[in-house]
Amino acid sequence: MADPSTCPPLTRASVLAAHAAIKPLIHRTPVATSTTLSAFASAPQRDDELEGASGKTEAKPPAAKPTMRLFFKCENQQRVGAFKARGAFHALSRLSDEQLARGVVTHSSGNHAAALSLAARTRHIPAYIVMPSISTPSKIAATRGYGARIRFSGSTAPEREAVVRDVIAETGALLVPPYDHPDIVLGQGTLAVEFEEDVASMVKGEGGVGARGAYGRRGGKGLDAVIAPCGGGGMLSGIATALGGTGIRVFGAEPSFQGADDARRGLLSGSRIPAVSSLTIADGVRTPVGEIPWSVISDPEKVKGIFAVSEEEIKKALRLLMERMKVFVEPTAALGLAVALYNEEFRRLVEREAGEEGWNVGVVLSGGNTTMEALAKLYGPAE
Amino acid sequence: MADPSTCPPLTRASVLAAHAAIKPLIHRTPVATSTTLSAFASAPQRDDELEGASGKTEAKPPAAKPTMRLFFKCENQQRVGAFKARGAFHALSRLSDEQLARGVVTHSSGNHAAALSLAARTRHIPAYIVMPSISTPSKIAATRGYGARIRFSGSTAPEREAVVRDVIAETGALLVPPYDHPDIVLGQGTLAVEFEEDVASMVKGEGGVGARGAYGRRGGKGLDAVIAPCGGGGMLSGIATALGGTGIRVFGAEPSFQGADDARRGLLSGSRIPAVSSLTIADGVRTPVGEIPWSVISDPEKVKGIFAVSEEEIKKALRLLMERMKVFVEPTAALGLAVALYNEEFRRLVEREAGEEGWNVGVVLSGGNTTMEALAKLYGPAE
Repeated sequence: MADPSTCPPLTRASVLAAHAAIKPLIHRTPVATSTTLSAFASAPQRDDELEGASGKTEAKPPAAKPTMRLFFKCENQQRVGAFKARGAFHALSRLSDEQLARGVVTHSSGNHAAALSLAARTRHIPAYIVMPSISTPSKIAATRGYGARIRFSGSTAPEREAVVRDVIAETGALLVPPYDHPDIVLGQGTLAVEFEEDVASMVKGEGGVGARGAYGRRGGKGLDAVIAPCGGGGMLSGIATALGGTGIRVFGAEPSFQGADDARRGLLSGSRIPAVSSLTIADGVRTPVGEIPWSVISDPEKVKGIFAVSEEEIKKALRLLMERMKVFVEPTAALGLAVALYNEEFRRLVEREAGEEGWNVGVVLSGGNTTMEALAKLYGPAE
Repeated sequence: MADPSTCPPLTRASVLAAHAAIKPLIHRTPVATSTTLSAFASAPQRDDELEGASGKTEAKPPAAKPTMRLFFKCENQQRVGAFKARGAFHALSRLSDEQLARGVVTHSSGNHAAALSLAARTRHIPAYIVMPSISTPSKIAATRGYGARIRFSGSTAPEREAVVRDVIAETGALLVPPYDHPDIVLGQGTLAVEFEEDVASMVKGEGGVGARGAYGRRGGKGLDAVIAPCGGGGMLSGIATALGGTGIRVFGAEPSFQGADDARRGLLSGSRIPAVSSLTIADGVRTPVGEIPWSVISDPEKVKGIFAVSEEEIKKALRLLMERMKVFVEPTAALGLAVALYNEEFRRLVEREAGEEGWNVGVVLSGGNTTMEALAKLYGPAE
């Protein structure tokens, strides 16, 4: 992968350049709206919901009543079913033919592996994916389906990294990490460029997917804020970089379960938390924030806040996205809506800062890669 | 409801008039495409799939290899989450103010009840929905949520019809049946008008939702065929009416389970089958075809064939729609794709008639009203 010291700076201009480079290779995913979910977000939470969230019953302040018009960026419709295609295509676009010829390698086995495999196949180069030999057969088959060459390893991080080193020694392949690299950050940020443009034309009444005239009354004003999931932080830092100077506020969403809210806790303690061990259902964000994303996320001018939600809240938001909005998404994609609907701290912030006029809030639906069996486990009678 | 003898004739012109009448009240739902699913439809079925379908292993003809480019009409994104909104809005548009003032009543408690309730609320008139007192609380709450006045009855058809008669005697409300009425047929047919127009502009490369240039190579040619689920037959007969004279072939899709393929069997025997008792997972089509829809469906000039699929095939198609296309739909909506992918009789027909050039096949995703719990039952470990 390109040496970080030779990478473009983390600026809006660099994201725009990244977007120009990858535009022919990715989908411009639709922006959807939902009158029902916007109404839910703009109504105060019921007392029982607030109790469920805090675990306390005594001395609550009245529930916040923010005004939010929600817009959803449907990256579940992106190639390989997740925003990760953006970063992978961008990373490869910055390599020389000579570098490309040796192939690429990664030790991630989720959406990033699929994205890297697709991007490599498009460039007719090999992608080596290192994954634990105990991975489920369906996951192995899916990764192979994208044309990747799979190398098996043990399950721990050191074991996987050792196999990556072997692959590099053997083939000269370049390591493309899932998030901790400027080219990945800039690539993921490209979704914000489209999101900003498309919402602006929707509120101007110029149409756009899902625009039904309901948002025309506020004239030319586009997005006021964006909420995106934060795992390794590649996407969140990319969005914040893309929207630098636009006045659009950027917020992160994390699960609170088993300490997966490492970015939120890192901001509180003043330093990045380097390790996370959580089995949150939002399996796309079980990782700690990387160093390069952290340099953006920890800047209060760039990211205005990180908010955490419970597993139950993620499940409730996921259900609403499916049953009400009819979009098929993975649990991680429900984080942003869960914050908008259930995090009182965020809701009070919107009530206070947006006032009666309210905000146009962009929610990033990060991906759609889950299975019927995984959903059956979440919502079946055993649960 | 309007006396059928005063209704417009079942012609394309009447559907176009219906579309003009309801256009401001309904969503123009998107048309989606999927390279992956088109590729699946255009590959021969594997031997094990064919065996599973026929239950036989001996002396099979080689698997058909039709060429199909699939287009999906996303009525799961329609108001109330199903195409039924079209018929309900159209039925009310044809009533006088005096008729409307008395309100409307129906004994269906699924998507039609929701659609009628919404249409009635929009006109500020009461909708009386007769439903069995043993209905699930969530279904009762959902129907109430659309503003309907619920009247409880026993579970059998005669018991429900008796309560409908009581409501009519008491209020003068007009009965709006779920499918067996010309105004309903014409209303449902409006989806085909949009489908035809939108695919035509997609293949011309004029854009459209989900169009990504992949369909431009065939010039100005639009849809060659449409497959739609067939229950009461309101939608299928409406589509066939709408597309009369266009040359676009119309096909129906039914479940074979417990005789739910009554339209297919009726065509074979030469007369409509008046009763069905099936618990197919495609719960939107558990009803027999109505008399008025049958007058269209039984005309071989209008509907070119009806094909049946197994419960397993519906489940496989539903999984593909969700996991691959990322659309959230109800099992009934998977019928058309199941026919395209798994019904060898249909696939041989396309291979034979479409030849190497293939067909642009429109598949109607009829609705998206299911729950996470219902899906967990279909795909959970107990199944």
